[in-house]
Amino acid sequence: MNRRSLLAGTAAMVSGMVLRSLAATAESAMPVAPDDPSRVPGAAPTPYGQRSGFEEAVRVPRSWWASLTPLQDSHGILTPSALHFERHHNGVPVIDPAHHRLMIHGLVEQPWAFTMEDLKRFPAVSRLAFIECSGNSAIEWRAPTGQTVQQTHGLTSTSEWTGVALKTVLREVGVKSDAAWMLAEGRDAAAMTRSLPLGELIEEALLCYAQNGEPLRPEQGYPLRLLLPGWEGNTCIKWLRRLKLGPAPFMTREETSQYTDLMPDGTARQFTMVMEAKSVITSPSGGQRLQPGFIDIRGLAWSGRGRIVQVEVSTDGGQSWQQTELQEPILSKCHTRFCLPWRWNGEHVILQSRCLDETGYVQPRRTALVAVRGVNSVYHYNAIQSWSIAADGLVSNVHA
Amino acid sequence: MNRRSLLAGTAAMVSGMVLRSLAATAESAMPVAPDDPSRVPGAAPTPYGQRSGFEEAVRVPRSWWASLTPLQDSHGILTPSALHFERHHNGVPVIDPAHHRLMIHGLVEQPWAFTMEDLKRFPAVSRLAFIECSGNSAIEWRAPTGQTVQQTHGLTSTSEWTGVALKTVLREVGVKSDAAWMLAEGRDAAAMTRSLPLGELIEEALLCYAQNGEPLRPEQGYPLRLLLPGWEGNTCIKWLRRLKLGPAPFMTREETSQYTDLMPDGTARQFTMVMEAKSVITSPSGGQRLQPGFIDIRGLAWSGRGRIVQVEVSTDGGQSWQQTELQEPILSKCHTRFCLPWRWNGEHVILQSRCLDETGYVQPRRTALVAVRGVNSVYHYNAIQSWSIAADGLVSNVHA
Repeated sequence: MNRRSLLAGTAAMVSGMVLRSLAATAESAMPVAPDDPSRVPGAAPTPYGQRSGFEEAVRVPRSWWASLTPLQDSHGILTPSALHFERHHNGVPVIDPAHHRLMIHGLVEQPWAFTMEDLKRFPAVSRLAFIECSGNSAIEWRAPTGQTVQQTHGLTSTSEWTGVALKTVLREVGVKSDAAWMLAEGRDAAAMTRSLPLGELIEEALLCYAQNGEPLRPEQGYPLRLLLPGWEGNTCIKWLRRLKLGPAPFMTREETSQYTDLMPDGTARQFTMVMEAKSVITSPSGGQRLQPGFIDIRGLAWSGRGRIVQVEVSTDGGQSWQQTELQEPILSKCHTRFCLPWRWNGEHVILQSRCLDETGYVQPRRTALVAVRGVNSVYHYNAIQSWSIAADGLVSNVHA
Repeated sequence: MNRRSLLAGTAAMVSGMVLRSLAATAESAMPVAPDDPSRVPGAAPTPYGQRSGFEEAVRVPRSWWASLTPLQDSHGILTPSALHFERHHNGVPVIDPAHHRLMIHGLVEQPWAFTMEDLKRFPAVSRLAFIECSGNSAIEWRAPTGQTVQQTHGLTSTSEWTGVALKTVLREVGVKSDAAWMLAEGRDAAAMTRSLPLGELIEEALLCYAQNGEPLRPEQGYPLRLLLPGWEGNTCIKWLRRLKLGPAPFMTREETSQYTDLMPDGTARQFTMVMEAKSVITSPSGGQRLQPGFIDIRGLAWSGRGRIVQVEVSTDGGQSWQQTELQEPILSKCHTRFCLPWRWNGEHVILQSRCLDETGYVQPRRTALVAVRGVNSVYHYNAIQSWSIAADGLVSNVHA
């Protein structure tokens, strides 16, 4: 069938089908499989593939400003770009890359506005890295609010990122010796801005134009995003349009009224950028129902300080701990997949995981975290997560 | 706007728009960006994201049975699932996973038909691996036919794959001691079948249900695919429905008339499953046009025998070679990204890359490969690729 006959045939069917197919799209149409697929010639190659219509895992919106990765449906360590969590401060802008510029100014020898083509001509660097919103698990500070692991931990995802090293571009413009901080600004309708200390961590920063082998997705900052591996997600400015070098932090709204940690004594910790080590069991997890017998316990662990070196699992609410197996590749500042074969005997139990990173930091129990931080914080909740399994097999979120 | 008003409004517009929008879909509509995106509130979160409408990289169909990954547009080592090359023997079947079974029979203690749920309850294993069609670069045996790297090398892609280890499932059914080969059969309309020797390489085999963190894509074998890391793509049977254990190869059509290597003396090599080490410069590559000045030479290298340990680049047609930088992660049986900063002076040159794997195998020059294999083969062409850069900057495929 050539295109003309395809279109003609389609036109005849269209009028009656359109409303039905629009409705089907909205509700995600379930395809119809032949009884014996091996007797029906299959579909031809396509320019850009889609997932199977039988699959329905989605990001769940948390509000108009965020959506959460379905970690309960995750496999391995990568998050498909289509399911990478979102956090916007005023929605996802439409930016034509041909007209996008990155301006670098302030305490530099040669202020410059780079086109996307300019940036792509520099040496390209790729690396895998997780991004985690500092507000991930924020709803857990006071009570076990999240019903699923998507709700408790879904503001983190891992991708392969590609771009030019920030230090390469800064070398090109020449950073003056009195520059100590850098303002990064997005081109979204929030003009999202953060101040970032120049120094060791900036060594790893990338100006990213690609994610998982193709151009960055719109909701991840297309066409250009700052990536600071291990730092809280909001510092990885999306739709990046401006970098300004200065002697001191710029004290933007996002680092004064927002993204600070209110301590029990009423003071606030500011510029707490690094995401400390954290882990969670993704299966079994909240909302699932188990049958007694063999269970492959699976989860993810990560640290903004480097590599995960150990994850332990407790099946008795933290009284005893067992080593899990970490799956390769185990990469710095990336999700690491752990697993533990287990047999559930049908009795009530509490499952927990705790991780250790290469700096020696151990993920804290909830009581230990709250003892230091209180419960007035929004950000940087990384306590051990507890899943209760009831005798009927239902898994739920508890604070134990 | 609620759904009813959306549908009503849409219905009014639909009749005149349908043919146009069908045509537009085929030609991919370009979005309109506001002059100043920072003054326009952006879009809300979405359940399952799409790439930017400004991006147009596509798989190029080679025929009704294959499509090629756009390696010239690749970043890092991962291929997005939507752009993973395709090779079907009778199209992509529609399979309902709820009714799919994997039957294992023949020389086993307990023949069994596993549901997808059964397979997912086994311990899950994830790993990154390339798949390469043994016919990748087949058009290069006699003349430099491919105009772009997509055409010459686009039948290879790297993904993270997740599933259950074949050995785990075989242990469950109990393989009899006289079993030495395994038939794997697909549920497509070709009932694609290959015989695979049990042994060391089968140790690494996975029964995959996920790719890049989400369920396998339809064109990659949804809901179940055999993955044999490092072996030619056709042995990684898609839409897997049956495994039969036997004492000897089953001599299917795909291993007698197809997928053998015709040697100069008229004999054919059979069961040449492993993909030997190969590399290619993806940028600059055929069809691109360069400006004199700094060029970041980028490419991919891989070996079915293990890790890549070195990639060298020649800018003088193979007279001298320079070490390139290999980017992390450097993983066994995966694409590895190499790069070399270079300055093009505007003169005619020939660019080549050659790789070395951890077994000590060096990618051969074309003349050395042809001296042994002749030019009657279709499969397993892994010679050094040459890109000619003319004085006007145009890059083209040559045999040098």
